Amino acid sequence: MSQTLGQVGEFRLIAKIHEMIAKEGIQPPKNLLGIGDDCAAFQPRPGYDLLVTCDCMVEDRHYLPRFMSSHDVGRRAMTLNISDIGAMGGRPRYALVSLGLRADMSLDDVIAVYRGFLAELNPFEALIIGGNVTKSDGANFLDITLIGEVESGRMVRRSTAKHGDAILTTGYPGQAVAGLTLLLQSERTGGRAENPLVSAYLRPSHRAAEGYAVAQTGLAHAMIDTSDGLMGDLGHICDESRVGAVIYEKNLPVAPALIQFSEHSGQTPLDYILKESDDYELLLTCAPDNVGRIRHIIEKTSKIPVTEIGKITEDKGKIRIITPAGESRLSTVSGWDHFSK
Amino acid sequence: MSQTLGQVGEFRLIAKIHEMIAKEGIQPPKNLLGIGDDCAAFQPRPGYDLLVTCDCMVEDRHYLPRFMSSHDVGRRAMTLNISDIGAMGGRPRYALVSLGLRADMSLDDVIAVYRGFLAELNPFEALIIGGNVTKSDGANFLDITLIGEVESGRMVRRSTAKHGDAILTTGYPGQAVAGLTLLLQSERTGGRAENPLVSAYLRPSHRAAEGYAVAQTGLAHAMIDTSDGLMGDLGHICDESRVGAVIYEKNLPVAPALIQFSEHSGQTPLDYILKESDDYELLLTCAPDNVGRIRHIIEKTSKIPVTEIGKITEDKGKIRIITPAGESRLSTVSGWDHFSK
Repeated sequence: MSQTLGQVGEFRLIAKIHEMIAKEGIQPPKNLLGIGDDCAAFQPRPGYDLLVTCDCMVEDRHYLPRFMSSHDVGRRAMTLNISDIGAMGGRPRYALVSLGLRADMSLDDVIAVYRGFLAELNPFEALIIGGNVTKSDGANFLDITLIGEVESGRMVRRSTAKHGDAILTTGYPGQAVAGLTLLLQSERTGGRAENPLVSAYLRPSHRAAEGYAVAQTGLAHAMIDTSDGLMGDLGHICDESRVGAVIYEKNLPVAPALIQFSEHSGQTPLDYILKESDDYELLLTCAPDNVGRIRHIIEKTSKIPVTEIGKITEDKGKIRIITPAGESRLSTVSGWDHFSK
Repeated sequence: MSQTLGQVGEFRLIAKIHEMIAKEGIQPPKNLLGIGDDCAAFQPRPGYDLLVTCDCMVEDRHYLPRFMSSHDVGRRAMTLNISDIGAMGGRPRYALVSLGLRADMSLDDVIAVYRGFLAELNPFEALIIGGNVTKSDGANFLDITLIGEVESGRMVRRSTAKHGDAILTTGYPGQAVAGLTLLLQSERTGGRAENPLVSAYLRPSHRAAEGYAVAQTGLAHAMIDTSDGLMGDLGHICDESRVGAVIYEKNLPVAPALIQFSEHSGQTPLDYILKESDDYELLLTCAPDNVGRIRHIIEKTSKIPVTEIGKITEDKGKIRIITPAGESRLSTVSGWDHFSK
């Protein structure tokens, strides 16, 4: 039976975490000063800009521990930060991890959370270089700051979409929210949900390798991840780029599992695809002539499908959805609002 | 009457924060990409190493809102991060702020917290470039990642103290913990505490300008801030540098207010000076011949006194305190342990 943090104490907890990271993480290069001083320190590489992102997950709000292993909690927290770096065309390098943990947490679970971090960082040869652990009397929380780098001139922003651009998405957005719905349903009925949608929710993937590959081509005009949902993030691109968009419903990629699930639920696949989800796909725009080249570069990187779903328009701030019958309806952009929910 | 966050909602809250920062913060330089994309981005300056630190404050654990204004809460959170950057000889440049807030917090209080951040950042022309706000159902928390820069070769670590070094401290450590004791006492008696010790607790100062000036001389061998208490941080220097230390009790700087307070409390000033406090003084070591030059450079920077309190010894891991009577006692190093307290 694993000890609790209350039994282990902060200093031994930190020592245990360091020990595991030293053994299972990437070996720090010589010019890096990691954990063990007032600050971490590193020499930035000439010719690269630095990217920094910071995302916080609060237990029972951003993740449901009753459905997820501690390892998956760690992976999820790191995945959503890596996704932000990848959506700007960068690669993750250094992570700082701040945890607020209840004293009744088990040491084994905390180590498993860190193993989840490393499972996501190691493939990029990225390192945990600092952070802190503090006691929380309420919900556990994980706050990660991730520093990445991108070759100067290769960064892709959300504010640079152009009128006439094609809009592309990777993968199948909307699976995670459907998976969560399934999990909550099966909890009520006492069943157990084994389903690709459930996996999409429990173990989301980032598209950082794909984002990096796209950025290297210099062909994407705007890029973002779908962390606020496909419509929410298309809304961010439109707002920041001062453009509008049209989306063709018939072009939207629908995962087979989502079609099947929607037949049993009261909603259409569209409801899941467009609204907030916990998918971390890429949404990007490029000149129509370059769709093939971007598709090719992503297909060379992974098996993730790329779908052209619409066009950027001059109709500033307006997103229209064209139904299969050819009708046009104006979309309302909705993202997460944490306080009013 | 100010609106609560539950009434305002996340998007309007964020818009209000941005608006205030744009008006009252430092104007971002052209090559900086701040809030409003998946990541913040900046070009690191050639010839500089980057420093990164991350500190989290949880309400009622690291600060007591019933004694502090929201502005002071913001100042404190930023001060302890700035202190870490300064203790390595750097200057703060970019902050990312993660807040977990209850829905019943008032918008005005949140804006006041951010004003507190700017009060500490603006003098360094440092900027808030990112972060996030999330709802907390329990205690509020503030997690800040601060990025600083230091001229390559000028960084001062805690692991490089040398046998024979003089040990110096700035200011008067121990005032904050005495101030907190006073506040808690006066709360019980219903009185109101107006005292320099109370101010030291409510509005701690960092010594980042002094740390930077010291680092520029290249004369300090090791440096750290006293965030774990004078003995705790001297312990870190000894552990990491594989040395020991001797401290002369009669040399320790005692604030006049602390002498007065100790006369009424059961403890000696020593108890406050050595143990954990919430002071952010510098503790540094240098060759004995350079004490005068370091003192001079700090006195040129500010009015903060510098006191030589002891020597680094070869007696690895051992800290001895020499009493005024010439007796030597071995100290036990104690720092914070958040889980077992």
